[in-house]
Amino acid sequence: MTLRIGVDVGGTKILGVAVDETGRETASVRRPTGWGADAVADGIAAVIDELAVPAGSVSVGIGVPGQIVPGSGVVEHALNLGIERSDLAAAVAGRTGIRPAVDNDVRCAAVGARALLPGLESLAYLNLGTGIAAGIVDATGPRRGTRGAAGEIGHVSIDPAGPACRCGQRGCIEALAGGGAVAQRWGRPADLPVRDVFDAADGGDVRAAELRADLVRGVAGAVQLLVLTTDVDAVVLGGGVAGLGDRLLEPVRTALAASAAASPFLRSLRLAGRVVLVPQGVAVGALGAALTPDAVPHDLVTRRAAAG
Amino acid sequence: MTLRIGVDVGGTKILGVAVDETGRETASVRRPTGWGADAVADGIAAVIDELAVPAGSVSVGIGVPGQIVPGSGVVEHALNLGIERSDLAAAVAGRTGIRPAVDNDVRCAAVGARALLPGLESLAYLNLGTGIAAGIVDATGPRRGTRGAAGEIGHVSIDPAGPACRCGQRGCIEALAGGGAVAQRWGRPADLPVRDVFDAADGGDVRAAELRADLVRGVAGAVQLLVLTTDVDAVVLGGGVAGLGDRLLEPVRTALAASAAASPFLRSLRLAGRVVLVPQGVAVGALGAALTPDAVPHDLVTRRAAAG
Repeated sequence: MTLRIGVDVGGTKILGVAVDETGRETASVRRPTGWGADAVADGIAAVIDELAVPAGSVSVGIGVPGQIVPGSGVVEHALNLGIERSDLAAAVAGRTGIRPAVDNDVRCAAVGARALLPGLESLAYLNLGTGIAAGIVDATGPRRGTRGAAGEIGHVSIDPAGPACRCGQRGCIEALAGGGAVAQRWGRPADLPVRDVFDAADGGDVRAAELRADLVRGVAGAVQLLVLTTDVDAVVLGGGVAGLGDRLLEPVRTALAASAAASPFLRSLRLAGRVVLVPQGVAVGALGAALTPDAVPHDLVTRRAAAG
Repeated sequence: MTLRIGVDVGGTKILGVAVDETGRETASVRRPTGWGADAVADGIAAVIDELAVPAGSVSVGIGVPGQIVPGSGVVEHALNLGIERSDLAAAVAGRTGIRPAVDNDVRCAAVGARALLPGLESLAYLNLGTGIAAGIVDATGPRRGTRGAAGEIGHVSIDPAGPACRCGQRGCIEALAGGGAVAQRWGRPADLPVRDVFDAADGGDVRAAELRADLVRGVAGAVQLLVLTTDVDAVVLGGGVAGLGDRLLEPVRTALAASAAASPFLRSLRLAGRVVLVPQGVAVGALGAALTPDAVPHDLVTRRAAAG
């Protein structure tokens, strides 16, 4: 029986989980992330070593906020981690003796969401965080695309008259609905700027209501675009902004239903019913990393015996 | 050696081709399409019978302008053919003794385009016709989605202030760039309304220049959205409007390069270099139907012997 370890590497913390044969989490470990390729690899290795202790056979999957060179364990553009390019799989294998599968963190979350929602054959996990990206997964596994960049929909523009985006365009999905963009436009310091915007909008603040409306139309636009392009069963909302729960989901569903009101075609897609929140209370990114199809079992018993 | 027959069913004509083992077309047959499920099945069967004559083993693939119920040969919403719902595979099998694979026509064209462009591992075929739709294909075959509707991007809105669409939204890709929408907005009778618009725009007509600019930004928006969502190697432009060739491709590439000018991220995607025209002079839809992976070989020799 192989113990499946999943490691979700975020900008602040590394979360490792051990998953049993039924897909349930049996142990978890957290460490601060550190900065730069060596520190990150050290932290990941320490998490793996701690979780692997009782096991005879172990596989490891790692989710990182960056782009993976397809067919390799090389991570690029993981700016949150201070990594421009690093062969992370080799670095971790060198430290632990276990070669991990490495994938993009949002794609791992999509794998995890699919495991938690067995009624869905295919889904897009729409990560609503500082930025916006989607991971697409179906019965054959994660859909990565040729460069591993499938689902990077943050910079699709859906309104040429919309707010300016740091990417140079206007009205990108990320400029409308990204947590960072909303916080910047709101301009007031807050622990959770998007929640602050929603609270102020509920309280009658006109500017906040405008920002909230932009966020909602950005999310609704992302849902529609994902369903129309990839025909997934559902779009699962996750990430920090999705922590708003029904305060986010209800207006998004209302926006989708409103677009459908004038269009039998859109009505037939039943978009409002095809967007759901990720189940709360589960580390979906780490779970998905543990379940990623590319993780290879390693026999530790023999290895320990050989080490004497 | 199995003779692969591909049938492309359009609103006006049915085109059948026979394809040899190297993937080249060796024979072709045309018939008018007819209206309604029976007439269409009769026409398809006649084309198959004519092409199958010399062969011992035959497989048949059919591309239709409609949605296929996944895992079946049932076609729905083929409005151009007067078919709301029909088990076309069964109807053709009943008439010919050969059970065909049936798929959406744009998806068949994507399969055909990929066969003609062996340097591309994955691509989206963007059909620029009366309406707009895409077929997505990679090394594993056509990407259909759960309902077979993947690629139906005509009704993704990229400009809430854009022209009204028959689907009820504004600024849909189809309202900007669909041949039918452009013809309706132009309002002047012409054999090829979009060509007429391009000619008038070249001649200095302001209204035509506006319509052309909308068409170009709709196509460029479609290319960007397909690449960002699915990370295909390239987007291949086909369909009637793509018959404009470089008169269409050049301004689309210019528009993509202009968006990239302000954005290192978009520049890194090299979108302008990732859009190409479908090779001319080949019936790409019928070719793709012939090559569709689901077409099953049928042994005709035994069948003819048994028939006496």
